[in-house]
Amino acid sequence: MVDTAPRTSERTVPASAPAPASAPQKAAPKLDVALVERMLRGSYPEIRLEAREVAKDPQFHKVDGLSLDEQRERALAQMKVQAEQGFQLRAFPKRLGGHEDPGGNIAAFEELVTADPSLQIKGGVQWGLFAAAILHLGTAPHHDTFLPDAISLKVPGAFAMTETGHGSDVASIGTTATYDPATEEFVINTPFRAAWKDYLGNAAKHATAATVFAQLITDGVNHGVHCFYVPIRDAATGEFLPGIGGEDDGHKGGLNGVDNGRLHFDNVRVPRTNLLNRYGDVAPDGTYTSSIDSPGRRFFTMLGTLVQGRVSLDGASTVASALGLFIALTYASQRRQFASATPGQEQVLLDYQRHQRRLLPRLAQTYAQYFSHDVLLNAFDDVFSGRADTDENRQNLETLAAALKPLSTWHALDTLQEAREATGGSGFLAENRLVGLRADLDVYVTFEGDNNVLLQLVGKRLLQDFAARFKGASGVDLARFAAGQVAGRAFNEGGIRRVGQNLSDLAGVGHGIEALKDHETQRALLQDRVDTMVAAIGAELNKVRRATPAEQAAAFNAHQDELIEASRAWGELQQWQAFTSALEGVTDAGTREVLSWLHSLFTFSLFEKHLAWYLTHGRISARRGQAVSAYINRLLERLRPHTLDLIAAFGFEPEHVRAPIASGAEGLRQDEAMAYAANLRASGEAPIDEKKLKKPKHS
Amino acid sequence: MVDTAPRTSERTVPASAPAPASAPQKAAPKLDVALVERMLRGSYPEIRLEAREVAKDPQFHKVDGLSLDEQRERALAQMKVQAEQGFQLRAFPKRLGGHEDPGGNIAAFEELVTADPSLQIKGGVQWGLFAAAILHLGTAPHHDTFLPDAISLKVPGAFAMTETGHGSDVASIGTTATYDPATEEFVINTPFRAAWKDYLGNAAKHATAATVFAQLITDGVNHGVHCFYVPIRDAATGEFLPGIGGEDDGHKGGLNGVDNGRLHFDNVRVPRTNLLNRYGDVAPDGTYTSSIDSPGRRFFTMLGTLVQGRVSLDGASTVASALGLFIALTYASQRRQFASATPGQEQVLLDYQRHQRRLLPRLAQTYAQYFSHDVLLNAFDDVFSGRADTDENRQNLETLAAALKPLSTWHALDTLQEAREATGGSGFLAENRLVGLRADLDVYVTFEGDNNVLLQLVGKRLLQDFAARFKGASGVDLARFAAGQVAGRAFNEGGIRRVGQNLSDLAGVGHGIEALKDHETQRALLQDRVDTMVAAIGAELNKVRRATPAEQAAAFNAHQDELIEASRAWGELQQWQAFTSALEGVTDAGTREVLSWLHSLFTFSLFEKHLAWYLTHGRISARRGQAVSAYINRLLERLRPHTLDLIAAFGFEPEHVRAPIASGAEGLRQDEAMAYAANLRASGEAPIDEKKLKKPKHS
Repeated sequence: MVDTAPRTSERTVPASAPAPASAPQKAAPKLDVALVERMLRGSYPEIRLEAREVAKDPQFHKVDGLSLDEQRERALAQMKVQAEQGFQLRAFPKRLGGHEDPGGNIAAFEELVTADPSLQIKGGVQWGLFAAAILHLGTAPHHDTFLPDAISLKVPGAFAMTETGHGSDVASIGTTATYDPATEEFVINTPFRAAWKDYLGNAAKHATAATVFAQLITDGVNHGVHCFYVPIRDAATGEFLPGIGGEDDGHKGGLNGVDNGRLHFDNVRVPRTNLLNRYGDVAPDGTYTSSIDSPGRRFFTMLGTLVQGRVSLDGASTVASALGLFIALTYASQRRQFASATPGQEQVLLDYQRHQRRLLPRLAQTYAQYFSHDVLLNAFDDVFSGRADTDENRQNLETLAAALKPLSTWHALDTLQEAREATGGSGFLAENRLVGLRADLDVYVTFEGDNNVLLQLVGKRLLQDFAARFKGASGVDLARFAAGQVAGRAFNEGGIRRVGQNLSDLAGVGHGIEALKDHETQRALLQDRVDTMVAAIGAELNKVRRATPAEQAAAFNAHQDELIEASRAWGELQQWQAFTSALEGVTDAGTREVLSWLHSLFTFSLFEKHLAWYLTHGRISARRGQAVSAYINRLLERLRPHTLDLIAAFGFEPEHVRAPIASGAEGLRQDEAMAYAANLRASGEAPIDEKKLKKPKHS
Repeated sequence: MVDTAPRTSERTVPASAPAPASAPQKAAPKLDVALVERMLRGSYPEIRLEAREVAKDPQFHKVDGLSLDEQRERALAQMKVQAEQGFQLRAFPKRLGGHEDPGGNIAAFEELVTADPSLQIKGGVQWGLFAAAILHLGTAPHHDTFLPDAISLKVPGAFAMTETGHGSDVASIGTTATYDPATEEFVINTPFRAAWKDYLGNAAKHATAATVFAQLITDGVNHGVHCFYVPIRDAATGEFLPGIGGEDDGHKGGLNGVDNGRLHFDNVRVPRTNLLNRYGDVAPDGTYTSSIDSPGRRFFTMLGTLVQGRVSLDGASTVASALGLFIALTYASQRRQFASATPGQEQVLLDYQRHQRRLLPRLAQTYAQYFSHDVLLNAFDDVFSGRADTDENRQNLETLAAALKPLSTWHALDTLQEAREATGGSGFLAENRLVGLRADLDVYVTFEGDNNVLLQLVGKRLLQDFAARFKGASGVDLARFAAGQVAGRAFNEGGIRRVGQNLSDLAGVGHGIEALKDHETQRALLQDRVDTMVAAIGAELNKVRRATPAEQAAAFNAHQDELIEASRAWGELQQWQAFTSALEGVTDAGTREVLSWLHSLFTFSLFEKHLAWYLTHGRISARRGQAVSAYINRLLERLRPHTLDLIAAFGFEPEHVRAPIASGAEGLRQDEAMAYAANLRASGEAPIDEKKLKKPKHS
């Protein structure tokens, strides 16, 4: 446990220094930084603070300029230290020394991103994938046999699911595990090049075992993808075991502390009991049994255990976005460029409207993500702690994770890039960390579920819900209904219709922005957009429900882009709801006012982004639409004096930031330069500006 | 000279292979790949082909996994080879062995991006900045004394303009060059830390001299920024000369073959004649003279010589975007994922609507850039060859470069990132080049003029032109005019008014997309948007033209974001015009039809991107607005079968591509996997799918 009170207040003081003279506000409300800091820590405040302390330790920090080998060895050495410190134990069973705290485990893991994303992901592969597969897909004997060494890192492991030929479509992988009753063994085999396992963390070098996903074949029947525990390297020599081969994936765009590689299997035999048999088992005589009758549902149940990767990436991306904004906004508050209206003083970057436009909406988005991530993390813990592990909760969790992970991982890349550009050439230097963080997080948008594929999953769920709601309705009803949609009515009979009325009103009367400020109206606009998009697609698909599979596939494909857009809108709605709930719980008046501006900035940025949709669908009038951008500019002005408080609430300490441009050095340099100029003027020895010299001649 | 006929036709054959069965078109027109390839080579076809041959040479290719030192030494060694081969001579005077072909020099330079951007930029620093400063800012004696060694690389040089404290605002740099008539020397001095020169290519290690920008002070008067030739290192030992110090900028986000560093000067003395004195000189007695009376105009004239950097980045970014698309689209045409409507066959990525949406509009944008870049390059050559070197041409060139460079450099990052995501985990591997290209090009968006600052320059020019047009108009006129703007009328009395009428008609009658397909209507919509935005801002600024400087600055700042948006719109219009002109010159019917779809995709993507503006300003009706996205989807379907032809026309050969995923290996892997499955089925030994086994039970 860490006592944080003094630390927090110390940090609060400089961060809440009065706004510079150039800021337009006066007598503005005051954000309670310590309060907001607690809000952002969410449901796992102590664990996050502990993990932040760990992340301050220099031995865990990324070092630029190491060779590929050095980076990999450093990451492994860091993991060994973590294993000794017991950092990884939270997720595991108490009888094996763990804490059985799945949510807390994720929270701690997320905070490591400020130290080194390679460490985070290499640890994620070991404990969140390899060991987690043994835990979630295996049974007690596997926990006893394999889990202790996976937890302690005595056995570094790879999670061998993806193949060169199949990434997103796991069900179609080519690796086979054929049962041989004569020897009571499974024969793991790679039938062709596309079935090589690929992009596997730890596989290029460190893994001595792997959890290998393969098509389970017994008695001439393929029971679909199952997971097997397969030793792959001699721990002493580091050489592959007989029948196993592989390749190094080599340099990557980032995360080079993780040794990704390829594996292939030439009829490698493992004991029958190496099948991780929680959801499907093979008896010694070859008989297959499963507690889940439907092969499809069994497959998705097994894959469902992977959701924790998505949950943790949502959190880690949000922390990384916050760090990027902390660096860029700190610099922007000190860096001056071009003359200001004040003689002898150049203008602070953060006072430029464009600079505010570039960074503050991303700050608002990051806040929204902190709150929506906490909702996701709680949903995850409800299921994985067993406290509320129902089918429905699992499905809802998976849908929420599949919506939020794409939004937050893309946001991280976008934000880190904007931060890098907003800090100019200095932002391109590795020492200022933005380029490294961006490079490391790049792959977050395609691993643990490609973002576009995940959003399509969300879209299918939205369509399912739509179909369920309209079960029994005739094609004519649906067509009439869909036509109504376009004209502007919402479909949910329960409560949205009333709101739908409000929405038509919105377009009709008045042109001010006031009507859009009400939370219920905001919610209705966001919800209605999701509903309308899904209904329109659903109605189109319904038209071909009796067509050939090829025609149905073509119709689905013709709406794929819209469906993904609808899923994104649904994810944005979840973020908005979480931010709104968090805001509504704030009682401190000053904090509430500043956060409500930030909330408005988030909401109106969504309206601005999707304004064409709102206009073409008659939900927002053209005149009101024109006012949206102007209102955003007003919000930027209001938020400007509170920017440093808002980033102080992220709670980063210098050991987390480690970027020279965000250290205060820029402010000192500016002060020194201004003092130099002032002294020179005072000395009377300052050269005269040629421009001033010539003026008298011409005027 | 290279004879290209056989090479081109060889390449054309596989690229124009019939579209896969899954593509929806039949009897489609045919693109003449060789013809389009010639179009894309623009005004310097032979030089581009020669440079492409050079870029095929493995000794110039980027190698992943080298240490920082090794990368830097490799880039220097590559430059030495280029210098021996005379690759760099085109820009220089004939009397020094050059070709006096400024446009051709840039064209060749741009093509190097496929080999290694570090080589390109390190060469750009040496020959395009350091030597070019001597050439353009110096006079004959400097050309005789300093230029030969700069050209031959005997003297590697740095271009010491940017300081830690001043990047975009060059006029405010702190380094001083004070003339001492007693010794007839300039004293170069760094007065404070913020005035250290920073981010200078070649400065960390290789440069033995630098062209140093400093405030020229003589007789107690500061005549503003001038450039000085300053030796900085002992060529034999590599040590700094007395009074000079520096630091290594260390690792960067990319371009690590370029050794960026910092320099500072402690009263370093250079002879009076080391002032590069083309635009300003100091006599032995200290008297300052200049051919340009106004210090402001003199400064901008000197800086104007830097435009070639911006021109070349526009071209290099376009080539890099094309390469990224070549890799991603080749892969997308071979890679299969998830079952297709054809049994036993998975669907090719490029047949997914979403995948087309992600890549094809970027292909259209890249084509537009090829054509607009050629316009820019010709404008550059007109001025720098001396053929049409007028003030007006220089200003137009600078404005065009300042508009196109931001658009194309951002486009390159966006495209390379989308290409990397569209190729999944394989896109993250360095071997497939997308991450490396993106990392190297990252800094293009902030160097040689920060993109946002450049767009603001364009905006000021647009406002100037606006003001000139309305010179003498009263405030009341302007206010009335601006109000009219918002209601939908365009301001140019000459010819746009008629179009303005058309535009209001557009919003009023009919809902189809047909009206938007006409080139004149498209031009009017794009032009009117620029004019309306500029007029609205101009009218707002006009209101405060008699206010205090502080109020004027505040008003300008309140419209900064809109102004930058207007500049971007102007840049897009230039790209559109170039693409349209190129298209209108095509006589081959099939080529014209396919390119016209691509042109439509480019244009309608602009309409879609800015649809909210067109709707709120009454230029496009809501119903027609809804049709825009649907029409884009139709264009994607039409273009799908021509995608491979369109990328074949980029003319890349395997030695330029060098990405295993774009080598055809993916197609071979897919074929092997499908053949394996087919053989297994034929053998009768294929396991039965459990799903099929269970069906009879349930149905």
